[in-house]
Amino acid sequence: MFISETTLRVRYGETDRMGYVYYGNYAEFFEVGRVEALRDLGWNYKEMEDSGILLPVYTFSIKYFKPAFYDDLLTIKTMIKEMPQTRIRFDYETWNAKGEKLNEGETTLVFINAETKRPTAAPPAFLDAMKPYIAS
Amino acid sequence: MFISETTLRVRYGETDRMGYVYYGNYAEFFEVGRVEALRDLGWNYKEMEDSGILLPVYTFSIKYFKPAFYDDLLTIKTMIKEMPQTRIRFDYETWNAKGEKLNEGETTLVFINAETKRPTAAPPAFLDAMKPYIAS
Amino acid sequence: MFISETTLRVRYGETDRMGYVYYGNYAEFFEVGRVEALRDLGWNYKEMEDSGILLPVYTFSIKYFKPAFYDDLLTIKTMIKEMPQTRIRFDYETWNAKGEKLNEGETTLVFINAETKRPTAAPPAFLDAMKPYIAS
Amino acid sequence: MFISETTLRVRYGETDRMGYVYYGNYAEFFEVGRVEALRDLGWNYKEMEDSGILLPVYTFSIKYFKPAFYDDLLTIKTMIKEMPQTRIRFDYETWNAKGEKLNEGETTLVFINAETKRPTAAPPAFLDAMKPYIAS
Repeated sequence: MFISETTLRVRYGETDRMGYVYYGNYAEFFEVGRVEALRDLGWNYKEMEDSGILLPVYTFSIKYFKPAFYDDLLTIKTMIKEMPQTRIRFDYETWNAKGEKLNEGETTLVFINAETKRPTAAPPAFLDAMKPYIAS
Repeated sequence: MFISETTLRVRYGETDRMGYVYYGNYAEFFEVGRVEALRDLGWNYKEMEDSGILLPVYTFSIKYFKPAFYDDLLTIKTMIKEMPQTRIRFDYETWNAKGEKLNEGETTLVFINAETKRPTAAPPAFLDAMKPYIAS
Repeated sequence: MFISETTLRVRYGETDRMGYVYYGNYAEFFEVGRVEALRDLGWNYKEMEDSGILLPVYTFSIKYFKPAFYDDLLTIKTMIKEMPQTRIRFDYETWNAKGEKLNEGETTLVFINAETKRPTAAPPAFLDAMKPYIAS
Repeated sequence: MFISETTLRVRYGETDRMGYVYYGNYAEFFEVGRVEALRDLGWNYKEMEDSGILLPVYTFSIKYFKPAFYDDLLTIKTMIKEMPQTRIRFDYETWNAKGEKLNEGETTLVFINAETKRPTAAPPAFLDAMKPYIAS
């Protein structure tokens, strides 16, 4: 399993009138998590996109246990547990500074050829970068 | 089944550099859908919250089939298929003006007593409002 | 002067922990206002952009008098007071349903040729559409 | 003058279909800048708010010179140039990693007593923290 951790601090505009981080904002937090996970693997998502491979999200799900609050320093733990093919799955957990797990989620993204708009296989060099972490 | 439809037009700031509506924005679109669904049932979510019942989201999942684009007029179809207890589940579909289903999702929310912060049963009057639509 | 009014309802995710609409969200509300103002004039901003004219924002300012709250039905009043040249200025006011003016702002946008990335004159047909409303 | 710098990386959802950071998002970036500026001065905005002093934004203005793009590492430079009274003014500049100034803006915020909802003087200890930096 490949694991990456990134931290982010909750912004005022990300809270709602309950005082919680709005439930919809975790999609963006998880995106930050997976972009940093790819960077840890030596991949830059922007360059991948500029080189003609898009990675739109196909499925997203999340289960909320506890809220996050304004100014909380959150840790997004991003995990890749299996080798991608034309799809790649990321698992996520959000933790606060008190060591509480706030939620857990997952996304599946599809490798798309930007020209043909068709699903395509994950780049071989990308798979190579992950091999040391994931048992086949 | 109770069904409610509401429309919304995609704002510029809701698109991303792919030209698509950013995947995280549907959480907010679905929230608009369920608030309008409650209003159709004679319930105002704000008043419910002001009266001491919170409805935080417990689970959220979504599957994306096609993207929405800037200025698209979207229809959010919100469905309540079963009588709520301490939780209420909403199902959603997003349709564009060409009659294409763009995605479908669901959320489960929990009725919480704002004072005790504990789960509580759905208000009886709320259940009464839904009874005509949902077979028991 | 050309005046256009559009209404929008405050979404939960647009509030912050003070219970107010987050101050940064009015930029998006004003964008909705000016897009609908252009539509009222027979212009579709998306088509203008697709035809090769971009309209990035050059300046934005806003003065806040009173907050807006969750579920408020807001009226965005958008005004064009002078004929555009390579720039177009929009003035805005946000009003709530109680008839209170919540804030007022303005943006200046620049007509940009998407190919050359250089400022360009407003399309003549666009100026024609505004002439009946603006004294020269 | 008190100067504070904070960096943030542009998230995918913060871009728009032009590929630029949406113009409305800088309000949130500047909020991050001023919260970190206060933290550098030994003040935690959350604690100030919890202690009964709110700081809603009264005016906000910004002038855009160049766009920011996805994944850019931005530096927000936040400046306090004069001693606050019942209002505090922050000036901001956004710089990219190539050393280009992308925009500059300012906000004025008002110290509000959370109970009375009336303007109040800046806390004396807060003024003391700023005195070494600002000529009187």
